[in-house]
Amino acid sequence: MSAHRARDLGIRIGTADTGPANAITDVTGVRVGHATIIRGDGPLRVGDGPVRTGVTVITPHEGSIQDEPLYAGFHWLNGNGELTGTAWIHDGGMLTTPIGLTNTHSVGVVRDALIDLDRRGTGRTAWSLPVVGETWDGILNDIDGQHVTAAHVREAYDSAAGGAVAEGNTGGGTGMICHGFKGGIGTASRVVDGDWTVGVLLQANHGRRERLTVDGVPVRIDDVPRPAPPGFDGAGSVIVIVATDAPLLPHQCRRLAQRAGLGIARTGGAGENSSGDGFLAFSTANRGRLPSDALGTEPPRVLQLEALADTYLDPLFHGVIEATEEAVVNALLAAETMTGRDGVTAYALAPDRLLGVLTRAGAG
Amino acid sequence: MSAHRARDLGIRIGTADTGPANAITDVTGVRVGHATIIRGDGPLRVGDGPVRTGVTVITPHEGSIQDEPLYAGFHWLNGNGELTGTAWIHDGGMLTTPIGLTNTHSVGVVRDALIDLDRRGTGRTAWSLPVVGETWDGILNDIDGQHVTAAHVREAYDSAAGGAVAEGNTGGGTGMICHGFKGGIGTASRVVDGDWTVGVLLQANHGRRERLTVDGVPVRIDDVPRPAPPGFDGAGSVIVIVATDAPLLPHQCRRLAQRAGLGIARTGGAGENSSGDGFLAFSTANRGRLPSDALGTEPPRVLQLEALADTYLDPLFHGVIEATEEAVVNALLAAETMTGRDGVTAYALAPDRLLGVLTRAGAG
Amino acid sequence: MSAHRARDLGIRIGTADTGPANAITDVTGVRVGHATIIRGDGPLRVGDGPVRTGVTVITPHEGSIQDEPLYAGFHWLNGNGELTGTAWIHDGGMLTTPIGLTNTHSVGVVRDALIDLDRRGTGRTAWSLPVVGETWDGILNDIDGQHVTAAHVREAYDSAAGGAVAEGNTGGGTGMICHGFKGGIGTASRVVDGDWTVGVLLQANHGRRERLTVDGVPVRIDDVPRPAPPGFDGAGSVIVIVATDAPLLPHQCRRLAQRAGLGIARTGGAGENSSGDGFLAFSTANRGRLPSDALGTEPPRVLQLEALADTYLDPLFHGVIEATEEAVVNALLAAETMTGRDGVTAYALAPDRLLGVLTRAGAG
Amino acid sequence: MSAHRARDLGIRIGTADTGPANAITDVTGVRVGHATIIRGDGPLRVGDGPVRTGVTVITPHEGSIQDEPLYAGFHWLNGNGELTGTAWIHDGGMLTTPIGLTNTHSVGVVRDALIDLDRRGTGRTAWSLPVVGETWDGILNDIDGQHVTAAHVREAYDSAAGGAVAEGNTGGGTGMICHGFKGGIGTASRVVDGDWTVGVLLQANHGRRERLTVDGVPVRIDDVPRPAPPGFDGAGSVIVIVATDAPLLPHQCRRLAQRAGLGIARTGGAGENSSGDGFLAFSTANRGRLPSDALGTEPPRVLQLEALADTYLDPLFHGVIEATEEAVVNALLAAETMTGRDGVTAYALAPDRLLGVLTRAGAG
Repeated sequence: MSAHRARDLGIRIGTADTGPANAITDVTGVRVGHATIIRGDGPLRVGDGPVRTGVTVITPHEGSIQDEPLYAGFHWLNGNGELTGTAWIHDGGMLTTPIGLTNTHSVGVVRDALIDLDRRGTGRTAWSLPVVGETWDGILNDIDGQHVTAAHVREAYDSAAGGAVAEGNTGGGTGMICHGFKGGIGTASRVVDGDWTVGVLLQANHGRRERLTVDGVPVRIDDVPRPAPPGFDGAGSVIVIVATDAPLLPHQCRRLAQRAGLGIARTGGAGENSSGDGFLAFSTANRGRLPSDALGTEPPRVLQLEALADTYLDPLFHGVIEATEEAVVNALLAAETMTGRDGVTAYALAPDRLLGVLTRAGAG
Repeated sequence: MSAHRARDLGIRIGTADTGPANAITDVTGVRVGHATIIRGDGPLRVGDGPVRTGVTVITPHEGSIQDEPLYAGFHWLNGNGELTGTAWIHDGGMLTTPIGLTNTHSVGVVRDALIDLDRRGTGRTAWSLPVVGETWDGILNDIDGQHVTAAHVREAYDSAAGGAVAEGNTGGGTGMICHGFKGGIGTASRVVDGDWTVGVLLQANHGRRERLTVDGVPVRIDDVPRPAPPGFDGAGSVIVIVATDAPLLPHQCRRLAQRAGLGIARTGGAGENSSGDGFLAFSTANRGRLPSDALGTEPPRVLQLEALADTYLDPLFHGVIEATEEAVVNALLAAETMTGRDGVTAYALAPDRLLGVLTRAGAG
Repeated sequence: MSAHRARDLGIRIGTADTGPANAITDVTGVRVGHATIIRGDGPLRVGDGPVRTGVTVITPHEGSIQDEPLYAGFHWLNGNGELTGTAWIHDGGMLTTPIGLTNTHSVGVVRDALIDLDRRGTGRTAWSLPVVGETWDGILNDIDGQHVTAAHVREAYDSAAGGAVAEGNTGGGTGMICHGFKGGIGTASRVVDGDWTVGVLLQANHGRRERLTVDGVPVRIDDVPRPAPPGFDGAGSVIVIVATDAPLLPHQCRRLAQRAGLGIARTGGAGENSSGDGFLAFSTANRGRLPSDALGTEPPRVLQLEALADTYLDPLFHGVIEATEEAVVNALLAAETMTGRDGVTAYALAPDRLLGVLTRAGAG
Repeated sequence: MSAHRARDLGIRIGTADTGPANAITDVTGVRVGHATIIRGDGPLRVGDGPVRTGVTVITPHEGSIQDEPLYAGFHWLNGNGELTGTAWIHDGGMLTTPIGLTNTHSVGVVRDALIDLDRRGTGRTAWSLPVVGETWDGILNDIDGQHVTAAHVREAYDSAAGGAVAEGNTGGGTGMICHGFKGGIGTASRVVDGDWTVGVLLQANHGRRERLTVDGVPVRIDDVPRPAPPGFDGAGSVIVIVATDAPLLPHQCRRLAQRAGLGIARTGGAGENSSGDGFLAFSTANRGRLPSDALGTEPPRVLQLEALADTYLDPLFHGVIEATEEAVVNALLAAETMTGRDGVTAYALAPDRLLGVLTRAGAG
């Protein structure tokens, strides 16, 4: 676990309280596991490395998600990315698998491995449309080498746990770059009106350095070298997973998902053209009340459900915005300087430098 | 009420049973009212006429829809048209007003009049985003004269009733043309598995004559003159309203709405470029359980809802397809030959001609 | 023209340069006209007043928009609102009429009046699907009285002009409230890489006071009374119109439109549940190259078009975000304290109070 | 190549002419390759077989699709399926990779293998978001065994060719079932007004037997056993790929894609709940004029493009509907009876049986 989180440095984003771990795992039942793959140094040789990548798995509850699916929704701020499994989330409104996060060129292996894990868990022939998101770590990682394997997916899945979540250079976030600094995994949570918890986990690989804003303050640090080799000037991507225990229907989840983009905007993201900014939100309420997608099951004809009245959505919207903003800052603070393929180095945003900027601005 | 309906002629579309009125009003609580405006003959003088238009109002239940909204969803097969109020149906998932159907250039007056009716009904300051759809009757009607008034909307609203529904040259369908014959309002219903009723009402102004298909049989009738004056060769539009008492969530309503387009396809529609083929579906279940949109109300925080398990959606999908197909045929059969502006005549599809075609094809 | 704009006070949002008028009219050909309706005082008597409302019309170029349509796209951050004409913008990708902005309960009259203006301009029978957006001014205005008439629409249309644009309590923005202060019309522009201009005009009626952020600084002013009478606690809406001379295809316009929401987010908006946050973007390039929607026209089969390569979109994205943010601040600064129905008063955000907050924060 | 195609049997769907091969390959440059995997018999042992599956690859032109992308659009009739790569098609409007079709549980391996093929072709580090669709062959195939490998993808890719296309039990269609008969790959084309060609290829695994309709005639064949083992009663899926040489922009491609569903409807499909009915359309026009997605490329700022005027879209719409309908019939006729895992047999729709039905109905 990182020693550096925004709250620890006195940076308080927004007004709502955090949950106990200030992480997506504050939503009861949600667990996070990582497999981190760091191997080799020196010049890029496709297939050999250097490798700076990994997999993160989020399990929405401890049971079989196919047997007990959850309502979910998604939104793209900018679609230069992949998030498999969304066609069924759009039409069926349900998340039916764990969620995987990895690099752009390993989405497939993670997806197929999650199917295999699902079958082993339930012990029957099934169909499965897993949700796997990605961001592109090719600046540091031998991404074309496709070094993620099914074993890494199982490792991440098996290690999934509640409580504090490792951030920064870990799991799917291992080789990521955010606003020109070393990025990666970040998380945060809010407890809002009605005692609902909303938690956010993101894989931050997006943003331009000159637009980074922390708690409203432009962060202009020009003397730290930038990682991009020639021809790699594009802003990357960010995948945001939002969990809540508030009872939301699919269209309400979709609305929650869109608010993640507002948190991204407040830290200086713009959904740049080369960015895949995809957001997924799910609600752990109504667990066990939704029909299983598994073959051969016969659910009751009419489901008895709970749903939050729309009037009470605003605190959740604000919670998502605040937690997303804070999770980006957490990702930046937790990430450590990393040298990858061809000796390219992505430098961390040093906490004292950030605090210096905030202090001079009268904030922080 | 028309003497000519498909069933009366022995044309049986699909396999499911109809409701008692074979109309959208078979869904308990749904009522339909029309105001028909026919005035003048001869050359078009914008503002004077001739007038061949009207308004149809569908009230989803007998109470205040704002106080007791219903879940709803919509889909466009082709968007060359207008259906106001859909932004909130997309995000809020709720139908909060009666539904109006009229000509393209009178959507505004119908919309604003529905707001006024809403306020008079509830007696309080409110906000309101009415749903009004349209098709273009400018071949027969002085559409630029904008002859629909708020009084016509009130007339349609006040006359709304259950039971049999007038079809053909009535209400919003008065001046419409469908597959090159006189078109207008059509309706049909199906009772499906689980004893759910699904009803369809459409304002049929779409389709090309050479593509009309009835119960799978191409209907090629070339000796009846076509109504289009030079320069008016485009296929028109069709608005389909789908009602059901099955308990559907907003995203399920949206899926139902899309199926209306499959019924349109089976009668030869293609969502042609100049066509506005918009479909709205609502569920009367959960009435009284959904939060009111009215100002100053405080709904319970958590709603207790019912929803059909997706596994049981197929009979409803099939019902929508069949009822839509039959409603198009009903609209054609009920419509009578009409002469409008500049002496343009739209000829009815004569029942005996249609039966002749079907008999020769071995169907019907 | 207001004496108070953000730039005049030294508030500089973002980094790009503004156009000469720092207004949507900096995009060549775009003109804006207002009709402002202020009448009566005292208790609300529906139909009598007091009236605090109006109409704003944006004409994308000086010709017939139906004859020379423009590519356009739209996005909803939150759909509790109305923006007519969007179905065709989704499928046809074209803006075919001027744009109207007004109050929620007068959308219809503005829409139908724009059709009439269109016909008078082109002198022929047509079809028309105008774009009209709204926000809700019922806190100050007798909105149920529906005081906007076709004459007001003509007044706004006829007065449309380039150059400086009146902001604040004018046109459709007359009775609006933004972040708990008096709101209304605001505008701004940016000139970006490639010498493209992007201009924004918004009708600001959204936001909660406790979340207002100006240039990153939380604005907490608690001693100015809030306007909302009991039961009117919802956040309102904001409609944003984005114009550019960069050659954008419809899907690129849609991407631009979504970025307006990021500017809203940066000033503290969250797309609250009761808010209708709808954004429309159009490109004035390709004018005269796109097929007319008018009846009877026969465009060339294959159009010769220009489009910006996606790689160069980012400066436009950043421009939209910055201009939207600045336009909100301009709306707040230009608006003056207004007392409306039942003596309810919406207080202006006093420039010196805002400057005080910014100065204390070390910004501004 | 199959001896049985609808045209060969005298079944003529619709009115437009076909291209020379009556296949998607009639669109110049489009090529299709298959890898078919049939192995083992007897009881299902996951990982061992029996195997009845494969991969189909469609290459839109003979060059690098990443270097010369094509405009594209997609539509879901029902989203119980996967079609990767669509987020970028939605926002960027471009198809940037070949298209893969396979079984549900092998989408990932096909996706990642297409990335590898892409890199080997272009010889540089890139990013890639391949388009891979699927349908579920678990009734006949050991789908959980995930028997598709990267070598199969290469085999399909390397064998891609123009001209006649193998249909039925081949490639991704090997183990599929359609309307209760053996299904698989089907294709057809139409040459329409303006000499544009539109071609369709589909992987048909959808539909219920009791709703199958061929050329408008209900096909009721009850004496042929159905393949579904207990608990596998759902309707499957269909992926439709539409190609055209007409110059279409992304939003026009999306409209074309939606029309594939109307062809599905005309053969009795309903987008059933358990079906993943996803449609992708691309235009080979503007090849070489669109910006490459490849890293480090610098396209010209302003692209010079061609686009079909919307007025001329209808023949393409009709062509897609007709070709889709015919491609379903072709898939059924080409497929041969197959016995798969656990001895389950899917019977072919025998051409003489179909002709018998059509003849009795007076059609065919």
